[in-house]
Amino acid sequence: MNMKAPRGTVDILPKDARKWQFVESKIKNICDKFNFEEIRTPLFEHTEVFQRGVGDSTDIVQKEMYTFEDRGGRSLTLRPEGTASVARAFVENKLFGDPNQPVKLYYFAQMFRYERPQKGRMRQLNQFGVEVLGSASPAVDAEVIDLAMSCYRELGLKSLKLVINSLGDNESRTNHRRALVEHFTPHKDELCKDCQTRLSQNPLRILDCKTDSDHPAMKTAPSILEFLNEESKNYFDQVKDYLTAMGIDYIVDKNLVRGLDYYNHTAFEIMSEAEGFGAITTLAGGGRYNGLVEELGGPATPGIGFGMGLERLLMALEAEKKEIPIDEALDCFLVAVGDEAEKEAVRLVHELRKNGIQVDKDYQGRKMKAQFKSADRNKAKYVLILGEDELQKQIINVKEMQTGEQVEIPLSQLAMTMQEKLQGGIENE
Amino acid sequence: MNMKAPRGTVDILPKDARKWQFVESKIKNICDKFNFEEIRTPLFEHTEVFQRGVGDSTDIVQKEMYTFEDRGGRSLTLRPEGTASVARAFVENKLFGDPNQPVKLYYFAQMFRYERPQKGRMRQLNQFGVEVLGSASPAVDAEVIDLAMSCYRELGLKSLKLVINSLGDNESRTNHRRALVEHFTPHKDELCKDCQTRLSQNPLRILDCKTDSDHPAMKTAPSILEFLNEESKNYFDQVKDYLTAMGIDYIVDKNLVRGLDYYNHTAFEIMSEAEGFGAITTLAGGGRYNGLVEELGGPATPGIGFGMGLERLLMALEAEKKEIPIDEALDCFLVAVGDEAEKEAVRLVHELRKNGIQVDKDYQGRKMKAQFKSADRNKAKYVLILGEDELQKQIINVKEMQTGEQVEIPLSQLAMTMQEKLQGGIENE
Repeated sequence: MNMKAPRGTVDILPKDARKWQFVESKIKNICDKFNFEEIRTPLFEHTEVFQRGVGDSTDIVQKEMYTFEDRGGRSLTLRPEGTASVARAFVENKLFGDPNQPVKLYYFAQMFRYERPQKGRMRQLNQFGVEVLGSASPAVDAEVIDLAMSCYRELGLKSLKLVINSLGDNESRTNHRRALVEHFTPHKDELCKDCQTRLSQNPLRILDCKTDSDHPAMKTAPSILEFLNEESKNYFDQVKDYLTAMGIDYIVDKNLVRGLDYYNHTAFEIMSEAEGFGAITTLAGGGRYNGLVEELGGPATPGIGFGMGLERLLMALEAEKKEIPIDEALDCFLVAVGDEAEKEAVRLVHELRKNGIQVDKDYQGRKMKAQFKSADRNKAKYVLILGEDELQKQIINVKEMQTGEQVEIPLSQLAMTMQEKLQGGIENE
Repeated sequence: MNMKAPRGTVDILPKDARKWQFVESKIKNICDKFNFEEIRTPLFEHTEVFQRGVGDSTDIVQKEMYTFEDRGGRSLTLRPEGTASVARAFVENKLFGDPNQPVKLYYFAQMFRYERPQKGRMRQLNQFGVEVLGSASPAVDAEVIDLAMSCYRELGLKSLKLVINSLGDNESRTNHRRALVEHFTPHKDELCKDCQTRLSQNPLRILDCKTDSDHPAMKTAPSILEFLNEESKNYFDQVKDYLTAMGIDYIVDKNLVRGLDYYNHTAFEIMSEAEGFGAITTLAGGGRYNGLVEELGGPATPGIGFGMGLERLLMALEAEKKEIPIDEALDCFLVAVGDEAEKEAVRLVHELRKNGIQVDKDYQGRKMKAQFKSADRNKAKYVLILGEDELQKQIINVKEMQTGEQVEIPLSQLAMTMQEKLQGGIENE
């Protein structure tokens, strides 16, 4: 009997969930500033969406997808990345008809990739991502990169490296492709099996191969930057100018090619340079994909986006020793002694919560001393003590734990009194 | 080529996503008040977890699960409900060892059930749910029901019906079961195929059957309430007393039996009574499951929880015409005219956002007039206007849209000035 979480997946327990909530709310806030809006697409899509949207020849589609047939015989796939789903939704819901163009979307979503699990690489992973559909302006490329960098900056990360490249437009890519085939064909037999296939299918990917990375022909391979036509070069220059204007440092890496088929023009990755971060340093990656929406049956629509791994973001925060500020303290804990007090306690807790006060009590039939221990474990700011005596007098003892100060409050005024005492906290809601 | 979202799933687009965000944040806030903490479990589990945790003979396990083999030959299932996963996580992560008992957990999670899609019944659905593990106190039953009702109340729903029942402890259930078998056996041939199987496997479920609901024997069937032993009766009485003390109205329905195997003692459902809500009126359902954790390989641990459909919650809000308050207005929209101004605009937008100000600009190369239209569509509170003249003078025009008032601000003071003007908004962050 296998009662463990499936290999490559983990539970996020309360202590960590608070960190996730903090990071997500920070990022959501940044999206608001940038006027990006949330979209949520289904967990799975018709397999074809990824075959066409990610590309049949990619590792993701060929080796890593969770594909299955539903009870109606449809081939479905758990989404391995976010862009194809969002582009499909853009087409299906005719968002291209919205007068407010470009459409600026963000998502928080689980992704599923059947890979060998290791640190920073899970089979179920969480991504934050954005997609901007409908604008071909290089200012959007800079905006999207700015958004990604802002997330890291506002969370306090410092050891970051932004790497950019241009894959050019179709003409540039075609010319570069031809040059690559010419360059690698004499070495075909020395390349790995995968690269031999890539040579005819998608020679750009050879540059990304881990097996052949030391082959001498790799170093002398023609770079896309030499093949950018005037328009592509100009486009790339504008992106770089905008980044500079924003004060965002970057490195141009002519070997940066993204693993997905539909990219053109700007490609970028953000890496952690924190010591001890681990072998996989990429925190986020993205780029422009002006052909994708058409590929999925929509009108020709430029697009750009990125995906950001949230597990890796949390790892980077840890590697840079950035504490996530989390308030673990409970406002009130009610200690009740005696059967009648216990009954009244249930009512009181209900009433306090109804009045916006955070409060808990014992549910284990613990003795008074153990209830105080529970209050301590919960880091209660106030302990409310109700015994038979207090109940008879219709009062309750309110003890402020930091000062030790204790006051008697009539039960009928408890909610109001606690609201006043906790006002600082209430205002934050 | 099938480029639609799979049958029974939908995209949540920005306009609706704002509603989801509002509802989720409201519910999260209530969980905080109740001192419940978030847990996130993987989207899928080993199929066995649901076979054992939900029950092999249930409709969910037999007919509705998305079950598939991964590339390693494991049988995995997309979670059809939340309780089994949380209980599995409780066992695997040894949360029973936490001194802070009971463990009070909540989750927001997608569920997957292969059913005939209809209004209020999707194949991918969103649930909010809670599970309290480690306490056998009837006060927890009342607390959990209180939490569910609080969510609806704080969102403004009024037309609700809370239905409760007790399924008793094991002894009570065994006696009731025997009586049910005796009662239905003479009518066996008149019952549907499913009920004939249920008669030997789980006769309680006959009471839940839609096909046989009009059979005369249904009306005269022995009720569990007649078979509750002293302890179970006493337990149920306490739950009812607590609900009364909290001022929560309820109806006891002796025919309320939950579709899952592991329930005992308290069972409850919350229905919408709003006019025109639709045929499926159940908004939330839950109950106690004291045997589940042991069934999944953990120590004997009492538990109780509920699941709440969020699609149906949104439907109920609509049926009761409750508006969700959503601020659609954008703080600032920057209108730039001319190439140089456009360049500076990208930098300014970056700077404003960095200073916590929500701002957007045009990315379509629109003329000034069309940029103003964009500002209107975005309901901008302030329009910032930058032309070549202003750029030369290093100033910008800030127009407050509600009053029409316009002032010139030095570029170097723009962020600070806008922070002041928007202060009300900034404080809310």
